[in-house]
Amino acid sequence: MIREHTVAIGPFRLDGGTTLADVEQRVTIYGTPRPDGSNVVLVAHALTGSSRVAQWWPGIVAEGGLFDPAEWCVIGVNALGSCYGSTGPASQRPHNTRFPRVTVRDIAGAARRALRILNVERVQIAVGGSLGGMQALQWALDAPQAIGNAIVIGAHDHHSPMGIALNAVQREALELDPVRGLRLARKIAMLTYKSEALLNRRHGRRGDRNGKPYFDVEGYLDRQAELIASRMDPASYATLTHAMDSFDVREHAVSPSKPALRFVGITSDWLFRAQDVRAAAERFADRGFDAEYLELRSDHGHDAFLAEPAALRALLEPFVARCAHYASC
Amino acid sequence: MIREHTVAIGPFRLDGGTTLADVEQRVTIYGTPRPDGSNVVLVAHALTGSSRVAQWWPGIVAEGGLFDPAEWCVIGVNALGSCYGSTGPASQRPHNTRFPRVTVRDIAGAARRALRILNVERVQIAVGGSLGGMQALQWALDAPQAIGNAIVIGAHDHHSPMGIALNAVQREALELDPVRGLRLARKIAMLTYKSEALLNRRHGRRGDRNGKPYFDVEGYLDRQAELIASRMDPASYATLTHAMDSFDVREHAVSPSKPALRFVGITSDWLFRAQDVRAAAERFADRGFDAEYLELRSDHGHDAFLAEPAALRALLEPFVARCAHYASC
Repeated sequence: MIREHTVAIGPFRLDGGTTLADVEQRVTIYGTPRPDGSNVVLVAHALTGSSRVAQWWPGIVAEGGLFDPAEWCVIGVNALGSCYGSTGPASQRPHNTRFPRVTVRDIAGAARRALRILNVERVQIAVGGSLGGMQALQWALDAPQAIGNAIVIGAHDHHSPMGIALNAVQREALELDPVRGLRLARKIAMLTYKSEALLNRRHGRRGDRNGKPYFDVEGYLDRQAELIASRMDPASYATLTHAMDSFDVREHAVSPSKPALRFVGITSDWLFRAQDVRAAAERFADRGFDAEYLELRSDHGHDAFLAEPAALRALLEPFVARCAHYASC
Repeated sequence: MIREHTVAIGPFRLDGGTTLADVEQRVTIYGTPRPDGSNVVLVAHALTGSSRVAQWWPGIVAEGGLFDPAEWCVIGVNALGSCYGSTGPASQRPHNTRFPRVTVRDIAGAARRALRILNVERVQIAVGGSLGGMQALQWALDAPQAIGNAIVIGAHDHHSPMGIALNAVQREALELDPVRGLRLARKIAMLTYKSEALLNRRHGRRGDRNGKPYFDVEGYLDRQAELIASRMDPASYATLTHAMDSFDVREHAVSPSKPALRFVGITSDWLFRAQDVRAAAERFADRGFDAEYLELRSDHGHDAFLAEPAALRALLEPFVARCAHYASC
């Protein structure tokens, strides 16, 4: 059973001080929550994702998948600032009013308020990759009483200077031209999501497969750019990359109640390096969390959390089974 | 003694089939060549360099440096297609006529013709980093009788798919807006020239040092963009990145006469990975060259060949001394 709600959460005060009036959150729910929330999984999306998590993570949220809606109640919430049903730059009235900066804490807080309105007071697991992983960790720190476990994939406890700089050049492309700039930003981003080994194997120095007078890897980027142009609002892209840049929870206050944390590093990820993910897991363990580092061995790069669902599932299954066991106790 | 020449090399037929009329090459010469060329070093420049090699490589070409003009005759040639005195898009008449593609072989061939006109028939060493390293290797393969040794730094025997893709997104920025796009292209390029470790150390997540409302690393990129805007022609930038993309000498014919080759990989270089530089050295050794791999240990990234002259000098000094010894025999 899939239900989709547009939840009015009222005025929402942002970290930056602005209060947004009449904020809405688009929520998609797969399966049925137990009253105590013990089977609820919140799946947080990355930069260009939506609340329809089974669409963009089909190998994970699916019948027979890591999170089977027959057993789990899987909830996706479109991030504040995005363009898939939640309040963001594209939903502003009048249109194109300058939308304020939002932080990952704002995104997580707005989602939490929407879930409370839907009578979901507690989630057993928050999970996500990249910006989604940042959200999962933010939940664990901001609302430890409302979450049992967090799985942080291809992300860690702060955005790096290289990540900040790569987001900045992507936003600069948007400033040159919202439409063509979004295509360019996506191309830059795709290179940060893929590994050199993957490009070598898939494209090499071959000419374009459709006979265009350039290299195959250029044709690949063109196809990726086509896909993004029709489905992403440039202002949302800017808003959510700023949110990523702002993310740094290394000094976040720690509550006595501590959700269990699992950090997944991807060996070939050069945007969120495995060594940095490991270091974050160690920092949280040092602060008293049940925090462990797991490694997804893949040559795919950052996008392995999307591209390698079978390996990711195998890696996470023991922990998820433990969460389910606790849930049923 | 520094001399600068603009050498008319006449019509020049390009690899792509087009013949350029009235080609000129800007040549800068530091020191005095011996008649047999035994003290001549050709220093080939990278993407945005010029023939004035002592300006952009002051730690290497200098009194007391690795190549001291008191001993060596150091020659720089502005690459065909560039904008520092040699024929390129900006020198076309009528202006902005579409300039044809050039290859690294074209660049090396035009430079060689200019040197012959200046009565330099042979160089003892060709050396360069990045696109300059490609040129040095191209000299060794195309004109083994005219060159004794080649030093290839932060480059190898072909441009990688990741490198091609990164050049493509930079050219796409130029297409959006020649002026602001060049700034953006330079920012993207600077990120490929630096390592994550360097950005962590230099910039971290600090705010901008001049108080602008962004991160320090963004201010750094802005300053780099300012510097390029005033000194580089966007069409030359496109021409020379295409030349890099075309570079692949893995199947190049090998002459019985084989210059000695030294390949320098930089440990933190993610644009031209050290492992790929090492593999290229091994391929040339397998083909009968006196080819060796040297490693510059640096956390600076690709730009270490510019930023770490003392370490580079220490690494290359034994080989250069051997070249000088042979030269004086």
